[in-house]
Amino acid sequence: MQKIMHNEKSLLIAYDQGLEHGPTDFNLNNINPDYVLKIAEKGKYNAIILHHGIAEKYYDKHNATVPLIIKLNGKTNLVKSDPVSNQVCSISRAVKLGAEAVGYTIYPGSEFEHKMFKDFSKLVETAHTYGIPVIAWVYPRGKFVQDNLSTETIAYAARIGLELGADFVKINYNNDFEGFKWVVKSAGKAKVLVAGGPKLSDQDLLQRTYDIMKTGASGLAVGRNIWQHEKPLEMTRALKDIIFNNKSVNDALKNLK
Amino acid sequence: MQKIMHNEKSLLIAYDQGLEHGPTDFNLNNINPDYVLKIAEKGKYNAIILHHGIAEKYYDKHNATVPLIIKLNGKTNLVKSDPVSNQVCSISRAVKLGAEAVGYTIYPGSEFEHKMFKDFSKLVETAHTYGIPVIAWVYPRGKFVQDNLSTETIAYAARIGLELGADFVKINYNNDFEGFKWVVKSAGKAKVLVAGGPKLSDQDLLQRTYDIMKTGASGLAVGRNIWQHEKPLEMTRALKDIIFNNKSVNDALKNLK
Amino acid sequence: MQKIMHNEKSLLIAYDQGLEHGPTDFNLNNINPDYVLKIAEKGKYNAIILHHGIAEKYYDKHNATVPLIIKLNGKTNLVKSDPVSNQVCSISRAVKLGAEAVGYTIYPGSEFEHKMFKDFSKLVETAHTYGIPVIAWVYPRGKFVQDNLSTETIAYAARIGLELGADFVKINYNNDFEGFKWVVKSAGKAKVLVAGGPKLSDQDLLQRTYDIMKTGASGLAVGRNIWQHEKPLEMTRALKDIIFNNKSVNDALKNLK
Amino acid sequence: MQKIMHNEKSLLIAYDQGLEHGPTDFNLNNINPDYVLKIAEKGKYNAIILHHGIAEKYYDKHNATVPLIIKLNGKTNLVKSDPVSNQVCSISRAVKLGAEAVGYTIYPGSEFEHKMFKDFSKLVETAHTYGIPVIAWVYPRGKFVQDNLSTETIAYAARIGLELGADFVKINYNNDFEGFKWVVKSAGKAKVLVAGGPKLSDQDLLQRTYDIMKTGASGLAVGRNIWQHEKPLEMTRALKDIIFNNKSVNDALKNLK
Amino acid sequence: MQKIMHNEKSLLIAYDQGLEHGPTDFNLNNINPDYVLKIAEKGKYNAIILHHGIAEKYYDKHNATVPLIIKLNGKTNLVKSDPVSNQVCSISRAVKLGAEAVGYTIYPGSEFEHKMFKDFSKLVETAHTYGIPVIAWVYPRGKFVQDNLSTETIAYAARIGLELGADFVKINYNNDFEGFKWVVKSAGKAKVLVAGGPKLSDQDLLQRTYDIMKTGASGLAVGRNIWQHEKPLEMTRALKDIIFNNKSVNDALKNLK
Repeated sequence: MQKIMHNEKSLLIAYDQGLEHGPTDFNLNNINPDYVLKIAEKGKYNAIILHHGIAEKYYDKHNATVPLIIKLNGKTNLVKSDPVSNQVCSISRAVKLGAEAVGYTIYPGSEFEHKMFKDFSKLVETAHTYGIPVIAWVYPRGKFVQDNLSTETIAYAARIGLELGADFVKINYNNDFEGFKWVVKSAGKAKVLVAGGPKLSDQDLLQRTYDIMKTGASGLAVGRNIWQHEKPLEMTRALKDIIFNNKSVNDALKNLK
Repeated sequence: MQKIMHNEKSLLIAYDQGLEHGPTDFNLNNINPDYVLKIAEKGKYNAIILHHGIAEKYYDKHNATVPLIIKLNGKTNLVKSDPVSNQVCSISRAVKLGAEAVGYTIYPGSEFEHKMFKDFSKLVETAHTYGIPVIAWVYPRGKFVQDNLSTETIAYAARIGLELGADFVKINYNNDFEGFKWVVKSAGKAKVLVAGGPKLSDQDLLQRTYDIMKTGASGLAVGRNIWQHEKPLEMTRALKDIIFNNKSVNDALKNLK
Repeated sequence: MQKIMHNEKSLLIAYDQGLEHGPTDFNLNNINPDYVLKIAEKGKYNAIILHHGIAEKYYDKHNATVPLIIKLNGKTNLVKSDPVSNQVCSISRAVKLGAEAVGYTIYPGSEFEHKMFKDFSKLVETAHTYGIPVIAWVYPRGKFVQDNLSTETIAYAARIGLELGADFVKINYNNDFEGFKWVVKSAGKAKVLVAGGPKLSDQDLLQRTYDIMKTGASGLAVGRNIWQHEKPLEMTRALKDIIFNNKSVNDALKNLK
Repeated sequence: MQKIMHNEKSLLIAYDQGLEHGPTDFNLNNINPDYVLKIAEKGKYNAIILHHGIAEKYYDKHNATVPLIIKLNGKTNLVKSDPVSNQVCSISRAVKLGAEAVGYTIYPGSEFEHKMFKDFSKLVETAHTYGIPVIAWVYPRGKFVQDNLSTETIAYAARIGLELGADFVKINYNNDFEGFKWVVKSAGKAKVLVAGGPKLSDQDLLQRTYDIMKTGASGLAVGRNIWQHEKPLEMTRALKDIIFNNKSVNDALKNLK
Repeated sequence: MQKIMHNEKSLLIAYDQGLEHGPTDFNLNNINPDYVLKIAEKGKYNAIILHHGIAEKYYDKHNATVPLIIKLNGKTNLVKSDPVSNQVCSISRAVKLGAEAVGYTIYPGSEFEHKMFKDFSKLVETAHTYGIPVIAWVYPRGKFVQDNLSTETIAYAARIGLELGADFVKINYNNDFEGFKWVVKSAGKAKVLVAGGPKLSDQDLLQRTYDIMKTGASGLAVGRNIWQHEKPLEMTRALKDIIFNNKSVNDALKNLK
């Protein structure tokens, strides 16, 4: 776990949106995985999150300076029925591609929840045999989930990750600062990483990051807020000042001036 | 089987609610698995019931003084269709984590009953090869089950456990004292453990325990009634006085004064 | 096959109703498997039919004097959709428990027919490799089956068992004496055993048995008509007089006087 | 392939109707597999087609003079939803029973088409490893199939067999003489065998056979038209005169006078 | 990958339509696989795409001069529900048949998308272990896909191929010249091959090919436009002049005069 952390905190960069959302998230720069890999390396991220196809063609495990996390399952946003995300990469392939950790999305509340619970638990068993930590993306979703951003629902998501063996849970932040402390407690010894989401203003992103870290979370997985940013490395420095250096939002903002 | 019994009786503490119900069952103390593990050890429970994720991070098999039961399947309470609970931990992983016994929930009457019957029977075969006893949680449930707490239904649940190879059946008590003797007979040589349920008053919990033991049941699996209790160790002593020492309800109540 | 026959005829005692119907079939005596096992031994039945859970806890293969048949699949009567009965015991476990033969229920006409056809055929292949005979319970059932007791339907059931490799077919008798000769012919070299059904008067049961044997069937699997009977051993002798000794109904009835 | 052909033509006798249609196709003679086996041997058919259960009990591979084809999948005609026919016999069991070739039914257009495509292709791979030819019964069927006997549909059926690796395709003849030449071309190097169907008059059966052979087909699989016939061996000789000896319908009819 | 390319460009000939569309695409010449194989060899195509059944019977790996691509999955156009195309050939069989590359169709947006994602990813892992490149046919399709030919949808298709490990993506061209450059960028290091589609006029086909190559695509997979053409070799030369020799449409058209 220490390989994708620094002083018990972590800042990851996610680049699996090409499968999950399609290229509409991209522009002429960031559609190229090399562009994002360069940000990840220059920004000294704790790891970059890729699907196996991109990793195989773009990530050079012998020369890369940023650790790799392989996202093991995935789906498009085209299908509108209850979500199910199938495993698309084995752990042994992830290891061969150079992964230091693996990720998997669970959608609790989906009518296919049982399938993902089973597959996730199997991969936890395998990954821990390899000594590989597992990050669970836990997003309650589907026709039975009334409010996927209530504090109660997010706390449930965090707990599911812990109960099923995740080392990290990647969950959404719902701007309920006090409530999120409860969410972090629900995750227990599983470390909480907050998912990035759509692009925010610099001030909002940094304030949100500041709040998240104060709830006890262990870090962030950013994506669009970095590789859609005009100054991705400056914003990276600002985030790191908050996450690792306990800086204030105003101090962090100076990186962007 | 003797490893999780004492004089043919058993008092277990269950802590799988984080997955089955979410953290709404918890408060700032009992959300922490260490809190419940300490109760289990100090209260000298016959075993504690955990999901594999919690066991892996919190249960230290080399130093623990309370035996471990791994719950092998699980689901959330978010999904409202006919229940199906998939296996989330292999027997070999359970053994590696230190389990002395394993548990599995069957929902007879669910349209997915056949799936759980098959998976349960396979794990019985494997567990018995390892010499590991199996506890079947048997809860008739789903659109075809009109009254899941009728004596007839609970007796059917008990019998299903016996027929499919369970060593213990964990079932609900419906306050039909005479009828429950029939339930216990239906379980045959499979020992009957009664599920705890929501928190009761001290008097009610002890009276209920007293009655249950008089029907011929072998014990209780408690959860919320202990770790939501202000004096969990005192209540534990009271329960043990009834279960193991044949004390009256009034005598047992003295532990709580 | 000879191990569960006598002079090419067979009288079996079935005790799988605890799973298939629930304990409502039982009273304070016969709810105890030992009670039925004793009848089976004293009555010198050709075999007793049990689920693996009961066999494991009650059947002592080293000392038992009645051969064992393990029923390999099962379901409850709670689920009301098209029936599917999953395998709940492997052949190797059945053999380990002491089985001389195995049984499996197929529901032709169910929308899950294809699943049971596949599983049944696989187990026939395995069982015959072990040298273990297979009894197919064949009960056409489900929304597509208009009349599951027509002679045409029962003849189809018998033939399915033959075509899919059963050594015995266990089917219903519909009181069409002439028609049932055709049913028996449809089964070819697969031997026909008639299922017992709900309790009848002594006279009716013996007359029915007499008729069945005259159609060319090889025997009966009885259950409730024996272990719900006040004089199970006397009724057993009466049945055996008809099945093995070619006695008349009136002669057989003398056992019960 | 030559083991079930003679001069590149083939006349097979099918006896899998007991499973597919039930015993309503049978009378007191032909309900007995020995009766049909005797016809197959005396009539010197290129092979007889049986399900594994019948083959195991009636076909003596050491003394049989007619080659055996095992039908590997099957279903009843009771289920009225889109057809799916599951594999009920492994190739290794078929080989052990003495099979020189194997058969499998595909229902293109069924919503379960994808399942049968997958299973069929796997068995082709296995069978060809054993050196065993594969006959594909290809019958477009199900709610999406408007006209399962149009020339276009039958040509599609033939082509599916070729594309998926069948050595023979067994398909229906729709009395479109010119169109069926196109069907035969669609099958390419896969040889076309025409399915028999319900009983016809002698004249009609022979004329139909004559026409079929003139379209370029490689032969026939007959069933009811032979074993429901009063003079099965004479009709066999008549069919063989047309198929192997290029006789006219009138000449062939003389066998039956 | 170089085995099915020439100077980083590729012209493939597809002949899997017999399964996907049925023989309605064929005439008396091209219904014969030998006819198309001859075109492929004389036209020096970079490879021919076949299903395993045709390859096994017609493609002679020892003497063939055109490389082989085996299409690993397939379905008919009869079934009208959301598309699912099952694997019908293993990689090891494809290799045994002489394949230099393999193809597989994914239908993103289908409710069975998750199944194809899983199967495709597994075969990528296996194929790359063998050193075999994989071509993903990616066609968004099904009730959730509103416009399967919008530039956004096709760009998503291309990206899915890249993310899931395809070496080539075979996608549709929607005549949005500028937009298709974005599509090609979305595919990243996965090379873009454009699917052929129904027959066009010579002028239209060549203009379309010219445009496609200018967007950055790596080539074409043609089928009906060649083997339904009166002068397939001349049209092949015209296409190659555009794809490999940078000729104008008018210059290429001279091959057909």
